Amino acid sequence: MSRQSAVPGSCYFYYPRLVCVVGVRDEGRDTTNFAPVTWATPLSSDPPLYGICLSPKTHTYHLVLKTGEFTVNFLPASQAPLAAALGRLSGREVDKVRALALELEAGEILGTPTLGVAYTAAECLLVERHQVGDQTLFVGEVQRIHSIREAFDADGVLRVDHVTPLLYLGSNTYVGTDAESTTRPESLAPVES
Amino acid sequence: MSRQSAVPGSCYFYYPRLVCVVGVRDEGRDTTNFAPVTWATPLSSDPPLYGICLSPKTHTYHLVLKTGEFTVNFLPASQAPLAAALGRLSGREVDKVRALALELEAGEILGTPTLGVAYTAAECLLVERHQVGDQTLFVGEVQRIHSIREAFDADGVLRVDHVTPLLYLGSNTYVGTDAESTTRPESLAPVES
Repeated sequence: MSRQSAVPGSCYFYYPRLVCVVGVRDEGRDTTNFAPVTWATPLSSDPPLYGICLSPKTHTYHLVLKTGEFTVNFLPASQAPLAAALGRLSGREVDKVRALALELEAGEILGTPTLGVAYTAAECLLVERHQVGDQTLFVGEVQRIHSIREAFDADGVLRVDHVTPLLYLGSNTYVGTDAESTTRPESLAPVES
Repeated sequence: MSRQSAVPGSCYFYYPRLVCVVGVRDEGRDTTNFAPVTWATPLSSDPPLYGICLSPKTHTYHLVLKTGEFTVNFLPASQAPLAAALGRLSGREVDKVRALALELEAGEILGTPTLGVAYTAAECLLVERHQVGDQTLFVGEVQRIHSIREAFDADGVLRVDHVTPLLYLGSNTYVGTDAESTTRPESLAPVES
């Protein structure tokens, strides 16, 4: 296949990525700040750890350090405008919950609420952090998961025919999944590439 | 919204995720091993760092430790059977390049090749690693990116109308993106959730 070579930073080769809205209590303002993060990944099964990358320049970074906990919230594709608005507004200047009329659900284990509009959300307790380049990887231990009914099948797989998850492509561009393309490859046989 | 509460491990709340096929030289067998990894994320812009999670139980883990470099390769959705086959076969037992008739492209900066079938791939030099729970996060500094022509637009955004990226949902289930759902939210105005 004809390919061209490029230097790092020239393209978002690592997108699309699931939009993960990080919620964290802002006790000074008596609100919860929500900010979209796409540099995030599961890190461990046992214990169940999930990591989010935050720049030390962000308001969220300082709030997570202060509270020691956060929630991760995943939106349906129809909520791309909300994700974009959460990214544009600064929690230093604006109470996003009030400005965007966000509905919250109280945490079950921790004190940080989740976003009512999320099809699934998890409560995470900060257990470690690592400075990696210009970001800090915050490692949360998953305490509890909250999902709308029928979001996941009996195997725990997202039912993309019921819920279309919101993915980010970079540069304020979002996309959803195509449920009709869902496939479960059966063959163990060698595959021609 | 009516939601149900669940314990960690009960569902793959963090999927879909882009399938990242990790390539690493197996010098003992004079081949390159390729294995799909979905727990992976960009970690830093400057320097450009990309992280992959590997269990110490895997063949790939030991190969990356030995060679100090790896490639990350991203497949079109049509290659779900290849991703599944790469995950099922063990590089300890099988030379996957031969078994699956993989076409490779030589590295430009490093000694590890990329997968010819990938629409984009990056060469990464191992610069650090962190043990996090039951996995190790290997941090690679991106040296060079190789992409098929027209995969990315002038802003570096993947052209999902030209390339449908392969995403993983868990439990051997794959899905692609829906190009028609692409959106670039314009409004700065508050959004009703």
